[in-house]
This record gives sequence, structure tokens and C-alpha cells, in this order.
Amino acid sequence: MASTFDPLLNPSNDSSTVINSPPPSNLTQDDLKRIAAYKAVEFVESGMVIGLGTGSTAKHAVDRISELLREGKLRDIIGIPTSTTTHEQAVSLGIPLSDLDSHPIVDLSIDGADEVDPSLNLVKGRGGSLLREKMIEGASKKFVVIVDESKLVKYIGGSRLAVPVEVVPFCCDFTRGKLEELFREAGCTAKLRMKSGGETAAVTDNGNYVVDLYLERDMGDLEAASEAILRLPGVVEHGMFLGIATTLIVAGKSGVTVRDRFG
Amino acid sequence: MASTFDPLLNPSNDSSTVINSPPPSNLTQDDLKRIAAYKAVEFVESGMVIGLGTGSTAKHAVDRISELLREGKLRDIIGIPTSTTTHEQAVSLGIPLSDLDSHPIVDLSIDGADEVDPSLNLVKGRGGSLLREKMIEGASKKFVVIVDESKLVKYIGGSRLAVPVEVVPFCCDFTRGKLEELFREAGCTAKLRMKSGGETAAVTDNGNYVVDLYLERDMGDLEAASEAILRLPGVVEHGMFLGIATTLIVAGKSGVTVRDRFG
Repeated sequence: MASTFDPLLNPSNDSSTVINSPPPSNLTQDDLKRIAAYKAVEFVESGMVIGLGTGSTAKHAVDRISELLREGKLRDIIGIPTSTTTHEQAVSLGIPLSDLDSHPIVDLSIDGADEVDPSLNLVKGRGGSLLREKMIEGASKKFVVIVDESKLVKYIGGSRLAVPVEVVPFCCDFTRGKLEELFREAGCTAKLRMKSGGETAAVTDNGNYVVDLYLERDMGDLEAASEAILRLPGVVEHGMFLGIATTLIVAGKSGVTVRDRFG
Repeated sequence: MASTFDPLLNPSNDSSTVINSPPPSNLTQDDLKRIAAYKAVEFVESGMVIGLGTGSTAKHAVDRISELLREGKLRDIIGIPTSTTTHEQAVSLGIPLSDLDSHPIVDLSIDGADEVDPSLNLVKGRGGSLLREKMIEGASKKFVVIVDESKLVKYIGGSRLAVPVEVVPFCCDFTRGKLEELFREAGCTAKLRMKSGGETAAVTDNGNYVVDLYLERDMGDLEAASEAILRLPGVVEHGMFLGIATTLIVAGKSGVTVRDRFG
């Protein structure tokens, strides 16, 4: 992906900051995720309400927050976990937790993403937690997205991996068919997500199913695509996060890049 | 409601058909519901796939279909029930059933409504089955709405009864607050629906909760209102059925009126 890295992150009118890290050595993808996550935690201040993301990259951020709390470098943090998995991680690390009902305004959320396009639109939810993530990150004053450079795409769906849609179990094959039909022009194949190795459907934290959309081509106007998906009665939510991310941190073998949407 | 009956059903450019019924005697509201339901069942033909509605008015239609099947006046009907309650009723009456996964195109649906506005937009789901109803009725070539005249309103929400919104249980109070905020200008109060007499939230067929919106004034552009509600991540679906009904049958003390949206 190195060839698509610079043009995406550094369009001519952009305000990216490239922070030089040590010369690239043998950094693994997980090292890059950790670097991005630690950079994001620099935005956390004592007293904040923090949305805690889900997934392998966000996990590093949660670990780092707990470390700084233990060291006394951060105080009075309240975490809002975006999944039961993150809830369990945060409880085991002793991070004080709450929820959106008690804290409807979140100061800062930090989370990974499955894809990031040049306008900082995201695909999220391949891990199955898109709805809670969207509720919490959509309620955040600042939402910092942390990825390694492999997640940068030219357009949503461009990685040829799934754009997930959370659907109610009732007549899910009907809804699957409607979704496929909606994006026929973009060469869409819609598949019900199954439990790994199993013959039964994977179930989200909310008791719903996931239909994964695989696109051969750009689906065009994302806002229109979003409205069309949400208008289907069997759809609960989709994994496109449009205009929600405020900051993007990318760790690549050539360094860490921080980019602000309103920079 | 008799004073609002004629203007709503018979605007000058409308194609309503008033069918004179016997002189009004002591008809109860339930008699009127039955009259409208029986009239709707006249649209049913042998061999059709029929969406079976939910609620006190739709129940009469399901009863009538079963009667005609027993009498041999209808054959080869497949019913698609819109709720577990209707499923049970239809099973007990011996109506052959299927679902949208097997029959994604429905010939005709018959169902009641909580409100009907002059453009045949509806409020449904006060009974808690809005999502399945919207999936099935939205997949129907013809959707006949059957009501007694008390359900006619000048604008959606105009009865001052609830416009229901199905929401995920996760942080439902947050979503409730967002919904109230959305329609603040229409004097909206949003309340989580509770089990009757209970202190716990009512649960839908899909395991979700319901937030009921009470409006003091017309909310204006309904399409825009619909998109704004669906855009909230915690919302699964709402009870406004816009542009879905094709025919309206109203039973009033002065007779039965049949009105076609595309008449």
C-alpha cells in the first residue's frame, strides 16, 4: 500500500503533519497499530469522558490509558466502552466506566477503522460492533481514528473487504437481497456473516445479524447510499462512518502522520 | 370525528368511492372495524401471497380470509404474518403461512393503522409490530389500509397519540433524548414505552424497545423527519409509513369509503 500512502494523506491543500519516527526497522503491523494508538492517547486529558474503541488497534489505546492512570499521569477519566469486549478489557484494567445514558456528551473517542478514504470517511464494524461505536463516536466532540497504513483506500469498499450492515434477524435473507439490489451497479455481493467455522449466523452485541457488502466499484454518493441503506426496514445500522472522524493518525513504515479534518 | 370525515376523504380532486351501507344503526367501533376488514378481503384472489396485519382491525380480515378458505371461495392463499400474534392466530385458523425470505414479493397486504393523513401516510406500531409490518407491507404490490373513521388525522401525530420509534436497548435513554431534541420545534415529548403496569420497558418481537413521540404540532416535511430519525444510530425503524399504502378503506357511521392513492 505504500504507493497509495502519500497521495491520500498529503493532498496539496492538506494540513497533514508528518512526525518523523526513528528510521524504519523491522516494525510489524501490530507495532504500527501500537504507535498510532499511543500517539492518539496524547490527546487524552485528565477529567475527560473517553469513548473506548474496539479491535486490535483500539486495544493498544485502552492499555495505554490504563498505564497512564496507574502512573498518575492521567486522573479522573471516565471510559465509555464501545463493545462488551472493550468493557471487559477496561474493567480488568481498572478504568472507571460509564455509558451514554449517564454521559451523553463524550469529550474524545479513540478507535480503529477497517478503511479510511481521503475525506476521512470510514468503514467500521468488521469486528461486529458498529452500532455501539457509531452511537458513542457520533456523540463525541473529537473522534481520533488510528490505523496502520494498510487501511487507507481510495474509496469506501476499495479494499474489496466487507462494508458491514447490521440487520434484524427477521427475514434477513430478504434484507440481504434488497441490499445487494441497491448496489447492483457497483457490482455488489451481499453475504450474511456466519460464525467462524460455523453454520449459524454471527450475532452482534445487540442480538442482530450482519450482512457484509462486497463492492467491485465505487458506490458513488456516500450520503445517498447511507440514506438508501437506512431506509430498508430490516436494517439497523451500517458500517460507513461519514463525517464523524475529526482526526486521523496513520502509522506507516515511514513515520506517523496526524491529519485533522478541520485542519 | 364525523366533522373531519368528509373533507379528509373527499378532497375535490379525489377519486373516492362512497359505498352506501345500510342506514347507521347502533354500530360499535368494532363493527366499523369489521366492516372495513371485510371490504378489504374482497381484494383477495385465489393464489395470492397475502400480508396479514396485526391489531384489532386486521384480526377481522384474517378471520374473514379463513372463513372464505373454509367455504372454498378462496384457494391457494399463502399468508405472511406481520407479528407473532398474527402468526398464532393464522396457525389456529389453518391458513398456510410463509415468510419474506421464501416469498419476497407479496401480492396484497391488509392491515390497520393508528393514524391516516390526507395523503395516505400512516402511523403504525402502537401495538409494537411496526418493523415486521413495514418490511412486509413495503414489499407488497398493493397495501390496503383498513380503519374506522376515528383514525383519520389532518397531520401525522395529529391525534396526540404516539408516533412509535423502535430503538436498540443499548443506551436507549440517550436515543430517547436525541429523538426529543430532533422534534423540539414540534413540541415533542419522547417516552420509553413500558410494559403495561410494569416498571420494565416493553420489548418488541425483535427484542428491541419503543420510544413513543408525542407531538404538539405538525412536524412538517415527513420525508426529512423520516431520514433524520433513521440517521440516529440507536434507531431501528419508525412507525411512519410514507407512500406505502395504496388503498384506504374507512368505515364510518355514514358508510364505507374506498380510496385509491393512484386512483
